[in-house]
Amino acid sequence: IISSGICGTDKHILEGKDKVPFPAIWGHEGAGTIESIGEGVTTVKPGDKVLMFPLPECRECSSCLHPKSNFCLKESILPPTGLMLDGTSRFTCRGRKIYHLYGTSTFTEYTVVHEIAVGKIDDDAPMDTVCILSCEVPTGFGAVFNIAKVTPGSTCVVFGLGGIGSAVLMACKASGASRIIGVDIKEEKFPRARTLGVTDCLNPQKLKKPVQEVVVEMTGKGADFAFEAIGLIDTMVATLESCHPSYGVGVIIGLAPTNSQLIFDPMLLLSGRTLKGGALGSESCIPKMVTDYLQKKINIDPLITHKLPFESINKAFELLQGGHCIKIQLPFILEK
Amino acid sequence: IISSGICGTDKHILEGKDKVPFPAIWGHEGAGTIESIGEGVTTVKPGDKVLMFPLPECRECSSCLHPKSNFCLKESILPPTGLMLDGTSRFTCRGRKIYHLYGTSTFTEYTVVHEIAVGKIDDDAPMDTVCILSCEVPTGFGAVFNIAKVTPGSTCVVFGLGGIGSAVLMACKASGASRIIGVDIKEEKFPRARTLGVTDCLNPQKLKKPVQEVVVEMTGKGADFAFEAIGLIDTMVATLESCHPSYGVGVIIGLAPTNSQLIFDPMLLLSGRTLKGGALGSESCIPKMVTDYLQKKINIDPLITHKLPFESINKAFELLQGGHCIKIQLPFILEK
Repeated sequence: IISSGICGTDKHILEGKDKVPFPAIWGHEGAGTIESIGEGVTTVKPGDKVLMFPLPECRECSSCLHPKSNFCLKESILPPTGLMLDGTSRFTCRGRKIYHLYGTSTFTEYTVVHEIAVGKIDDDAPMDTVCILSCEVPTGFGAVFNIAKVTPGSTCVVFGLGGIGSAVLMACKASGASRIIGVDIKEEKFPRARTLGVTDCLNPQKLKKPVQEVVVEMTGKGADFAFEAIGLIDTMVATLESCHPSYGVGVIIGLAPTNSQLIFDPMLLLSGRTLKGGALGSESCIPKMVTDYLQKKINIDPLITHKLPFESINKAFELLQGGHCIKIQLPFILEK
Repeated sequence: IISSGICGTDKHILEGKDKVPFPAIWGHEGAGTIESIGEGVTTVKPGDKVLMFPLPECRECSSCLHPKSNFCLKESILPPTGLMLDGTSRFTCRGRKIYHLYGTSTFTEYTVVHEIAVGKIDDDAPMDTVCILSCEVPTGFGAVFNIAKVTPGSTCVVFGLGGIGSAVLMACKASGASRIIGVDIKEEKFPRARTLGVTDCLNPQKLKKPVQEVVVEMTGKGADFAFEAIGLIDTMVATLESCHPSYGVGVIIGLAPTNSQLIFDPMLLLSGRTLKGGALGSESCIPKMVTDYLQKKINIDPLITHKLPFESINKAFELLQGGHCIKIQLPFILEK
């Protein structure tokens, strides 16, 4: 692993909200170089630069073969097994079994992953930048382009202006949305969000009524599209309630706490609202996105607010927990 | 009103599950003749045969102008106001105000409705048959053709084989679904459901595990499309859980009890499931459906199991509550 990112989901795991098997090597966003390959591996060879895919695509299961799906049935996220696809762990520490995370485990210089969990990328890609194409950017772009299918001239609401939320609003802008309302309790995120396309910023803690009511008032009857990029039950319900009653589409991307329950009046749906979810976009598109970045067709630079040496991972978590960053990259060797 | 239908929603109201203002004239499926018109009415004239639209289309609001929506903002269903669009009631009994229901009120020989709540139909339409094109058939067809967009070769599950469920499965068959699983606790409905297109019938009360688990086993990983045509919270959750995790689409059509809460793990959505709702299809298509019926392009006859004189309305409710009918029509003059 040359560089690893940390993600809101890592924060949820640290806080005990998302349960994963322990002890484990965490991290699921990684850019690295193939050191060696196992028997039968054909798509990569030693020396190849690769990105890690926390949601692989086997291209054989009913999900992979369906045109509207990306959630490969060989995933190890729901629930997190902490194991390789063959049911084994490849890590030990003083004889004790150490679990994997989401089939990737990137907070380490050497990891073991299934062949379908990596994709070869361009040799000249800057690893401590394109690493965010491993999870954050495809998750946000996939939610907008593939799941919601945001239309030109539409009104969008994005709950959470962290890494994934920022990718969502970039994609909303690229889709031609005419109004993008950003919602976060950390106002220090607002200036950057505005540069990425947000037209209106709302801090729910400074409003006199629930944020969804304010969104409905601002938009007449509700937004065309609303996105939850936090992983909290309350904001998931607010996402649905922010949508136009008869054609609004709410998309949940944030990973909710383990065994939590979404609770809402089904009448919210009867009038025509749609509630969808999605994870990690389409991983098979990631190598192409690296090329697009190198060719300046997409710009992911504004999403990375910090690059810290990997040893500073605890400081990185502090920044993330305080809401003081969009995206932190943790290269093992920090270039000056 | 020449004929009125009764619907599962009427049963919910009778049982106190769906709250509406009282006292009221119920009934929302009606076929009748225009007796007189108010000032400014241009789309119908006295003598016209019409069907009633519980969900009108003003063709001016953001819902009506949106290509994917049919839930006109001038509706009086969510919540039920019991009033005309101008906020008045036009019924009294011994000086006391009587409420309307869903802008229609069809359990009466004379009613008052807004111009947008009726549509002129062919003069030679048999009123005690086409009446079910007022609510039941467009609701079922709309859920399949407009909301779910059922695809050829797909697997569908229909919870509830009453009137709307039967219309749903007819539409699934017309869409080319290769397998249609019908779910009901009244097995007497199964033979008719089979003639309408159901390939597998399940009675949840005779299964050793939850019906959604059986559906998932029968279909490999879950159905492509699932429909809830009952109006119960448990079956709404089962509908979602019956869907394929990464591309399954669940559609809620049944009207849930007032102030009830849908409760489920949001992880069900994160893998890619979609949950939608819908009501009453697209009412503007109804006159065309009457013509299609007269031209034998669609056949609604199998959906009507009983025609009883209107005076037998209490018996009709008993049949409906016992689950012994698909659809009952209540003509004011019963032709032999």
